[in-house]
Amino acid sequence: MSIRVAVVGATGYAGAELVRILAGHPGVTLSLITSRQHAGTAFSTVYPALAGHVDLACEAFDPDRTAEAADVVFTALPHKLPMEIAPSLLGRGVKVIDLSADFRFRSAAAYEKAYQPHAAPELLAEAVYGLSEVNREAIRRAKLIGNPGCYPTSILLPLVPLIKDGLIEADSVLADSKSGVSGAGRSPSLTTLYSEVTESFKPYKVAVHRHNPEIDAVLSEAAGRHVHAVFVPHLLPMSRGMLSTIYARPVPGVTSDAVADCLAAFYADAPFIRLTGRRPPDTAHVRGANYCDIGFVLDPAAGRLILMAAIDNLVKGAAGQAVQNMNLMTGMDETAGLGAAPHPI
Amino acid sequence: MSIRVAVVGATGYAGAELVRILAGHPGVTLSLITSRQHAGTAFSTVYPALAGHVDLACEAFDPDRTAEAADVVFTALPHKLPMEIAPSLLGRGVKVIDLSADFRFRSAAAYEKAYQPHAAPELLAEAVYGLSEVNREAIRRAKLIGNPGCYPTSILLPLVPLIKDGLIEADSVLADSKSGVSGAGRSPSLTTLYSEVTESFKPYKVAVHRHNPEIDAVLSEAAGRHVHAVFVPHLLPMSRGMLSTIYARPVPGVTSDAVADCLAAFYADAPFIRLTGRRPPDTAHVRGANYCDIGFVLDPAAGRLILMAAIDNLVKGAAGQAVQNMNLMTGMDETAGLGAAPHPI
Amino acid sequence: MSIRVAVVGATGYAGAELVRILAGHPGVTLSLITSRQHAGTAFSTVYPALAGHVDLACEAFDPDRTAEAADVVFTALPHKLPMEIAPSLLGRGVKVIDLSADFRFRSAAAYEKAYQPHAAPELLAEAVYGLSEVNREAIRRAKLIGNPGCYPTSILLPLVPLIKDGLIEADSVLADSKSGVSGAGRSPSLTTLYSEVTESFKPYKVAVHRHNPEIDAVLSEAAGRHVHAVFVPHLLPMSRGMLSTIYARPVPGVTSDAVADCLAAFYADAPFIRLTGRRPPDTAHVRGANYCDIGFVLDPAAGRLILMAAIDNLVKGAAGQAVQNMNLMTGMDETAGLGAAPHPI
Amino acid sequence: MSIRVAVVGATGYAGAELVRILAGHPGVTLSLITSRQHAGTAFSTVYPALAGHVDLACEAFDPDRTAEAADVVFTALPHKLPMEIAPSLLGRGVKVIDLSADFRFRSAAAYEKAYQPHAAPELLAEAVYGLSEVNREAIRRAKLIGNPGCYPTSILLPLVPLIKDGLIEADSVLADSKSGVSGAGRSPSLTTLYSEVTESFKPYKVAVHRHNPEIDAVLSEAAGRHVHAVFVPHLLPMSRGMLSTIYARPVPGVTSDAVADCLAAFYADAPFIRLTGRRPPDTAHVRGANYCDIGFVLDPAAGRLILMAAIDNLVKGAAGQAVQNMNLMTGMDETAGLGAAPHPI
Repeated sequence: MSIRVAVVGATGYAGAELVRILAGHPGVTLSLITSRQHAGTAFSTVYPALAGHVDLACEAFDPDRTAEAADVVFTALPHKLPMEIAPSLLGRGVKVIDLSADFRFRSAAAYEKAYQPHAAPELLAEAVYGLSEVNREAIRRAKLIGNPGCYPTSILLPLVPLIKDGLIEADSVLADSKSGVSGAGRSPSLTTLYSEVTESFKPYKVAVHRHNPEIDAVLSEAAGRHVHAVFVPHLLPMSRGMLSTIYARPVPGVTSDAVADCLAAFYADAPFIRLTGRRPPDTAHVRGANYCDIGFVLDPAAGRLILMAAIDNLVKGAAGQAVQNMNLMTGMDETAGLGAAPHPI
Repeated sequence: MSIRVAVVGATGYAGAELVRILAGHPGVTLSLITSRQHAGTAFSTVYPALAGHVDLACEAFDPDRTAEAADVVFTALPHKLPMEIAPSLLGRGVKVIDLSADFRFRSAAAYEKAYQPHAAPELLAEAVYGLSEVNREAIRRAKLIGNPGCYPTSILLPLVPLIKDGLIEADSVLADSKSGVSGAGRSPSLTTLYSEVTESFKPYKVAVHRHNPEIDAVLSEAAGRHVHAVFVPHLLPMSRGMLSTIYARPVPGVTSDAVADCLAAFYADAPFIRLTGRRPPDTAHVRGANYCDIGFVLDPAAGRLILMAAIDNLVKGAAGQAVQNMNLMTGMDETAGLGAAPHPI
Repeated sequence: MSIRVAVVGATGYAGAELVRILAGHPGVTLSLITSRQHAGTAFSTVYPALAGHVDLACEAFDPDRTAEAADVVFTALPHKLPMEIAPSLLGRGVKVIDLSADFRFRSAAAYEKAYQPHAAPELLAEAVYGLSEVNREAIRRAKLIGNPGCYPTSILLPLVPLIKDGLIEADSVLADSKSGVSGAGRSPSLTTLYSEVTESFKPYKVAVHRHNPEIDAVLSEAAGRHVHAVFVPHLLPMSRGMLSTIYARPVPGVTSDAVADCLAAFYADAPFIRLTGRRPPDTAHVRGANYCDIGFVLDPAAGRLILMAAIDNLVKGAAGQAVQNMNLMTGMDETAGLGAAPHPI
Repeated sequence: MSIRVAVVGATGYAGAELVRILAGHPGVTLSLITSRQHAGTAFSTVYPALAGHVDLACEAFDPDRTAEAADVVFTALPHKLPMEIAPSLLGRGVKVIDLSADFRFRSAAAYEKAYQPHAAPELLAEAVYGLSEVNREAIRRAKLIGNPGCYPTSILLPLVPLIKDGLIEADSVLADSKSGVSGAGRSPSLTTLYSEVTESFKPYKVAVHRHNPEIDAVLSEAAGRHVHAVFVPHLLPMSRGMLSTIYARPVPGVTSDAVADCLAAFYADAPFIRLTGRRPPDTAHVRGANYCDIGFVLDPAAGRLILMAAIDNLVKGAAGQAVQNMNLMTGMDETAGLGAAPHPI
């Protein structure tokens, strides 16, 4: 029996990636997709790559029609919109996986400090932060998922096990992250034009990016006390891929083996985590796939642990993790629809 | 029941793409891979992207061991080597799909003019040129396939139906082709260094490329007389993808509708041909997939038909078409293992 | 003594390239720059690359102020605007070099067929088409220049000498052109986003591009009769650079040497034309410079001459040729301000 | 009167960039270039971009001939070779600017730990580390320059003033650096192939790069005590450009203004340092130019200073800084030959 799913906001880059994955997912039927901008247009006209794979036309969003058509709804909209429509969907009995920031915070105050007034604060208590490997059990039972940001995913997956096990000093964390431009979305803007991006590399929103409080909140929960990480995002001259290089001070006496063991234990049953040891991960190795590749080096002279994690920002950083969460919520195999190998180059 | 397959020359770009496709193919067991350079090394060490998908180590080639392990063998080697080993494999009863030029010509003389003395000319009569959609029935019965070159694939698929139906003047053909650099392979060379390729675009081997006689041979067969096409290849600043823009003089009276009808009829049952009409194809829409997208425009003022075809040079231009041919040869569904959708971007 | 120059529309890509060249030009003083969008903002805030080289702030356009400040005015605006302001500038005694299409046609009817009603048709008779090497003497005496389009520049420079000398059949011309995306300008649009362009190659506006009548007009003038060329533009995954591959039928008896001699004679005193013989030109070799590199191959079996020309679309295809024309109009050395070597890579 | 200069090793990327700059330098005559690989070949055959700018052919290296032809010799060779030939050149009275690591260390032991036995340790005492803005006076008097590595240049320029003035804790430094692939040179290798680099981003030589001791040595000298910085280099999918993001703990009480003032004072007379304040620098803004753009942000919540510096690795990181040093050594204007503006895009 097949789960019926809908994608609300299907023509942004994350939405389209969701459509691609769901169209090939053996356990679901993609029954409805919406797009305000492209309502009435065939999805394969907007994305000709998918001709022959997706026959649906985009519709305008309607909560009744969506709730009728789907058991699980993915909302891939700019923040602010999802919190306005999620109550109407949940109230009609469907499960919601939101890819925006609207349901990532447990505290409305924290959300509002970084974003804006929250329209549905009563839902925050039941929403589950969808970092699949960290919150797997809660996700299985969830009706509403706040799917993590791409930067937080790449920073938290290597850090959480080490902080939980007390191997690093939680307040020593610096995360230097680099992202491909697809993370900025499909809306035309000067900063994402080809001629502005190629042969360009630069930091942006230094120490003021909205993903910083999201990172801090999860690290604080893992540490059991308030933690603030230094976070500097950079824009890479490439489309897909994200890599975070993370610096932390190990607790005295912690060895390379202890770090390796901690990660191996935490991710023993995690099909999408590949531990690369001392070999640094590479965004090219995870392109198009749901993997998070994690490597590390201990610099004993400096007393620093250097963690490195690579993901595809549109897959493990967005659509792929969302489907992974759907798999968990519906009792399907965690890897269903996500098993295709990355290309060798 | 699963077909056992081997890839000889598994660590070049086309070989690795074969390994990726075959590792995910539901009807085959990838039982053996060889690499002279990497013998003894795990494939996933050479291509970390495929960690978790391929567990084999590379071996040195041995005909006995290969023939024992596999029902079908793909040879993804530089030309000259395949014609030396193919007889030993065919003699042991396995089917061979060769991705080099060694078995693409019916005439040893034609091969030898473009390449070198042929070591197994007696096999040329039984070898089938593996342009899947054009030679489907012969491929089904073949034991030895000469898999087409990437340029010829992108040029012949739009042209053959029109020439066979007499809609264009066969000796008016000019093909202006553009290829990503992965077609040049994985051996380090100055011309394929990143700094030499980025922000660079240039023709090369103008009117002297070895794919020209291959193109001419197939066009001549379709036309029923000797035909020579002008062929100019160019190198694109990208990794994967090939697009050919082809100019031909339509026979007087031929309309746009007649061209569309001819292509639609010829490719009615071809799952990997997508006809895009007047919308030009784009390499991005076929990236990683086995499609050939074909569009065309008739310029009546100039009396010219402009055909455009896009493929992924490593998939429909090499590994994908090879697997498509294997599917035909073994009676599997033509699309088996090749059905994943391209990414939206 | 220094010529005073102004750039109207200084913050588009062509305008900014003009500013760069003029700021380093030994014979001019850049006295005024305008930008509707950035009026009041320092140019180096819009283009930080030029900090330390340009101290001007952008102004709103005012014809009086512009005519007072400058002897020569470059208009780097979208077509339609230049023909509205050019009369006011010419009437105040300044020379105008327009980079749009507004003054490229001798006939208002031809312009209006491709573009829109012409607002200043009386100026077309005195406007000179600024293809520097072809119209050098007329440019020296001109007060109003219609600076050529980038595609026409790359197509006409190799063709005009051969057509004038009667070496090729003028109505056999097919031009397959490929351009970097900077030619599409700096206004945000979906089609020029990094994620849409990278690893993508495609034709566009096949046989309907507005540069086609511009090309036809100049070829017709050179041939002394009406000529229509087939023209197919393509978009390259790179920022700067354009290469046209041009196919033409040589007149019977024409040899490779005759072609070489014709080009060498025509361009004997042309400092920005580099003839590369059989070696194909490469956009990387002209990047950032005002060169047009031209090579050719004669395919005797096919009876075709294959011409290849590479330019930087923003330099020889726009700003550089405009400055070259200014040099001619003001009696300066033709290469003044344009002599810097391209980077080796 | 013109200084005569030679480039030994002129066909690598840094050597070719030297040739480009020196060919356009108003105060020098480029009298001789050498290349083992291309001896006897015209430089413009190896680098067609420079046709019309460089008429020399490459020669095999000969110390007598080189010393006769040149007053200043640039050695742009892999390390180990320069220390073998420098004595022969210095002994003949010419000045030497070496772009390798051979003369960057004051201590033979430090060099030998990172590289190999030193062949000319007696020269280390007189060699001057060519970080132009930091060692300007010593460079003016030097006969032998060890031109800095590209990574050290981008890391030391922002740090040295702050460490000298005691504004940051010298042993808290972490440098996360990202480089375009041209830094890896022109010798074909798998890791710098286009298909390996595009859409790939990865760390390499984590905490074990040979530039680390070079960085440490200069920081230690500035701090007056031994300092070890954490240093993680990364490879960017681009050709030219380097950006370092540097994290350091400010001394208690240090404000943003204090940091700004310190940098402004130190670089008051430095024509190639552009301070960007809170606006992050961008490699695109320095492409092809000798600038080092430096910005910074103080994160008070974390108690961290985040410094960011962008250079073109082949210019300020190699050839440009070498010419800047030559200008200082010969009493020419520091900016001679280096004044061209970067392109706007």
